[in-house]
Amino acid sequence: MNQQALTDLKHRLREMTDIDLANSVLGWDQATMLADGGAAQRGRMMATLSKLSHEIMTSHETGKLIDQLSDWAHGQPAANTDAAFVREAKRQRDLLVKVPTSLAIEMSEHYSALYTAWAAARPKNDFKSVEAGLTKAIELNQRFADCFKDSAHPLDALIQYSDNGMTVDKVSRLFADLRESLVPLVRKIAGATQIDDSCLKGEFPAEAQLEFCKKIAARLGYDFNRGRMDISPHPFMTRLSGGDIRITTRTRPDDLTDCLFSVIHEVGHALYELGINPEFDGNILAQGASCGIHESQSRLWENRVGRGKAFWDYFYPVLRDTFPHFMEIGEDEFLRAINKVEPGLIRVDADEVTYNLHVMIRFDFERDMIEGKLKVKDLPEAWNARYKSDLNVVVPSLKDGCMQDVHWFGGRLGYFQGYTIGNILSAQLYDAAERKMGDLSQDFSKGD
Amino acid sequence: MNQQALTDLKHRLREMTDIDLANSVLGWDQATMLADGGAAQRGRMMATLSKLSHEIMTSHETGKLIDQLSDWAHGQPAANTDAAFVREAKRQRDLLVKVPTSLAIEMSEHYSALYTAWAAARPKNDFKSVEAGLTKAIELNQRFADCFKDSAHPLDALIQYSDNGMTVDKVSRLFADLRESLVPLVRKIAGATQIDDSCLKGEFPAEAQLEFCKKIAARLGYDFNRGRMDISPHPFMTRLSGGDIRITTRTRPDDLTDCLFSVIHEVGHALYELGINPEFDGNILAQGASCGIHESQSRLWENRVGRGKAFWDYFYPVLRDTFPHFMEIGEDEFLRAINKVEPGLIRVDADEVTYNLHVMIRFDFERDMIEGKLKVKDLPEAWNARYKSDLNVVVPSLKDGCMQDVHWFGGRLGYFQGYTIGNILSAQLYDAAERKMGDLSQDFSKGD
Repeated sequence: MNQQALTDLKHRLREMTDIDLANSVLGWDQATMLADGGAAQRGRMMATLSKLSHEIMTSHETGKLIDQLSDWAHGQPAANTDAAFVREAKRQRDLLVKVPTSLAIEMSEHYSALYTAWAAARPKNDFKSVEAGLTKAIELNQRFADCFKDSAHPLDALIQYSDNGMTVDKVSRLFADLRESLVPLVRKIAGATQIDDSCLKGEFPAEAQLEFCKKIAARLGYDFNRGRMDISPHPFMTRLSGGDIRITTRTRPDDLTDCLFSVIHEVGHALYELGINPEFDGNILAQGASCGIHESQSRLWENRVGRGKAFWDYFYPVLRDTFPHFMEIGEDEFLRAINKVEPGLIRVDADEVTYNLHVMIRFDFERDMIEGKLKVKDLPEAWNARYKSDLNVVVPSLKDGCMQDVHWFGGRLGYFQGYTIGNILSAQLYDAAERKMGDLSQDFSKGD
Repeated sequence: MNQQALTDLKHRLREMTDIDLANSVLGWDQATMLADGGAAQRGRMMATLSKLSHEIMTSHETGKLIDQLSDWAHGQPAANTDAAFVREAKRQRDLLVKVPTSLAIEMSEHYSALYTAWAAARPKNDFKSVEAGLTKAIELNQRFADCFKDSAHPLDALIQYSDNGMTVDKVSRLFADLRESLVPLVRKIAGATQIDDSCLKGEFPAEAQLEFCKKIAARLGYDFNRGRMDISPHPFMTRLSGGDIRITTRTRPDDLTDCLFSVIHEVGHALYELGINPEFDGNILAQGASCGIHESQSRLWENRVGRGKAFWDYFYPVLRDTFPHFMEIGEDEFLRAINKVEPGLIRVDADEVTYNLHVMIRFDFERDMIEGKLKVKDLPEAWNARYKSDLNVVVPSLKDGCMQDVHWFGGRLGYFQGYTIGNILSAQLYDAAERKMGDLSQDFSKGD
């Protein structure tokens, strides 16, 4: 093994990682702190840092160092983290260099224009005005996928960006299994007496919500000495370094659950990042394994723990202390309300059971569109039919139908599956934990 | 003129500026938001960005472009901003490339070690343990100054970093003039009946202080749509882009004036930056002309406006609304208290009259040390003697004497003069404004 090449490669990619982390600081600041007047210039600054990072990875020098180490790295066992570093560097660089710059620019420009068109067309339910643009986006995704000759399916080339190792074939089989029990379950729930969740509505001052949620975050193990919690329009977790893992949330004055479950969800993401060995800080290995794995951590805490009885046996008295609103409401009523399942139109508002059906619909349509089986012009009709058959809901308008999510109109395919993979993994992890450690509810009910 | 060279140079230095601004975002975040756990990695990230910026400016390519444009630029009138850009690029690059990398590294390492030694020695009044280190720091400053052959005096080479265009000769003459009237004035004030400023003490909740100061900032013209105000241990203003000029302050629960005058001071800095033509955003020209000029803006608003009767004719009723504490205190009493002059030991706590004497003492000692006239071992005695003769105060301990400020122990000489230059300029600017526009107090008393 060429020790000098390894040292040099680590040095180059540490600089790249520092640039990427700095860019994440700019992104966090943009979402939480930046006044409107600074938006345009912030975009330019972030683009410059992205370009510098891209240049380091795609440079001839980086390529040469990886080439000098690649044969050695591929022969090493998993425990050799230097070899893992080289393999991951090669994987990331290959993703960047296989796509011609001209195509990358064409994609970036087209997706940016399509996003703008979608934002204007969605409130007007105007699918016609984005139909040609979305058709071209699918075509660009096909050309992009063609750059990866090894992919068995064009969507595989896109999936590897978020869930490396997963394929259309694997996801399709996984989802088919899940559908088999999920669809009847959803039907059964829909046929039963509907749960009254009106007890969740009330007046909840933002300050009190945040204080309460900070207590929960700390109890779940979130380390405020290695992060912080702020407000942003869309909750997120971001790694700004190994010692600086931040979460955000938002509050609604009349509904506690938006803030509450956002915090538990983002704490789940953060605990995963906080668990990364500090010796990897500044190393490209210091990141989550995939979107699905990352989502498994957030969903584990949000749904498996945070919606459970044991968790609230501990926290319900604290909730009542903070919000006297709940003094008149029994813990059982509260638990039923936060676990209500109800098929609906909107993915991001969906409960944990029906959420997966939304994901599966999108995944199937992505696969069919990139295969050329489903034409963009036929998408609205196919969408509405599938929502009727799978979720038994009638789609009243395109903006709440196939135009609801930004992903496709930003050119992004091959991403949704991670959410459901995460849900499945979270159930498996919880199950494995109880098989190994026994019933966990005793501990949770003691706040442990 | 080589148009392509100009375009290329602008492009390269815009990237450098974006890196520098990104680094400023990291610095702002470090001072206001970052939890302790992220400190070490943040330092590494900022060092990486500094290095990348330094590499762009000192690169052979940048030098070649500047060489191609330099002759042209030096023949152009001041109004040609492209030529000014080239001249400023050359000036900045020359500052960087004239110093050998080996010396820059030696300085950086020594100053870092000396800072640590100072931080430990200061509470113990232990000058002996830093004497050798400070002696070496002076010697490194001498070697650094030797890199600039054109400088008439070694301190000139250091002054050009903060107050380009000023020299030891000019500053010495300026300060001699000022001393002539300042020293008798301070003596006269010290001999008069002392002002009772106890009316400024009370209980002032932090939230209320910040709200009140935000009102003042907005009224002075600070644009919260192009910035924000936060808390940091030491107040500062920072430019994160043309549309993002931030200020910070701090509060003391028993004293309103710390927060109040910090905010007016930083707003002064911010108004200067907010006034830079937006078309220069991302250009190296988009910065203050010098430390002295910058300080003139902050001191203008803090002292000439913010301690004036007209200003408080408008704001005193607002202050009373916010803090009933002042209902019993007349505006005259308040005005006298915020303008109290009292010689003391500590520069950063000094009033606007005696402040300049602190600066002059430091400037004289810097000059004498770098000339070799004053040995570091004789500094404490010289310091104490000068504080007695100039300010009539007895220095009881080294930590409140020559060990009080970090600058020298961080290797920094040639910086203090800017504070007094700023004070002088602020008076000249206010005077010029009134000569041109007439008495301004009418406007200020209407909040205009």
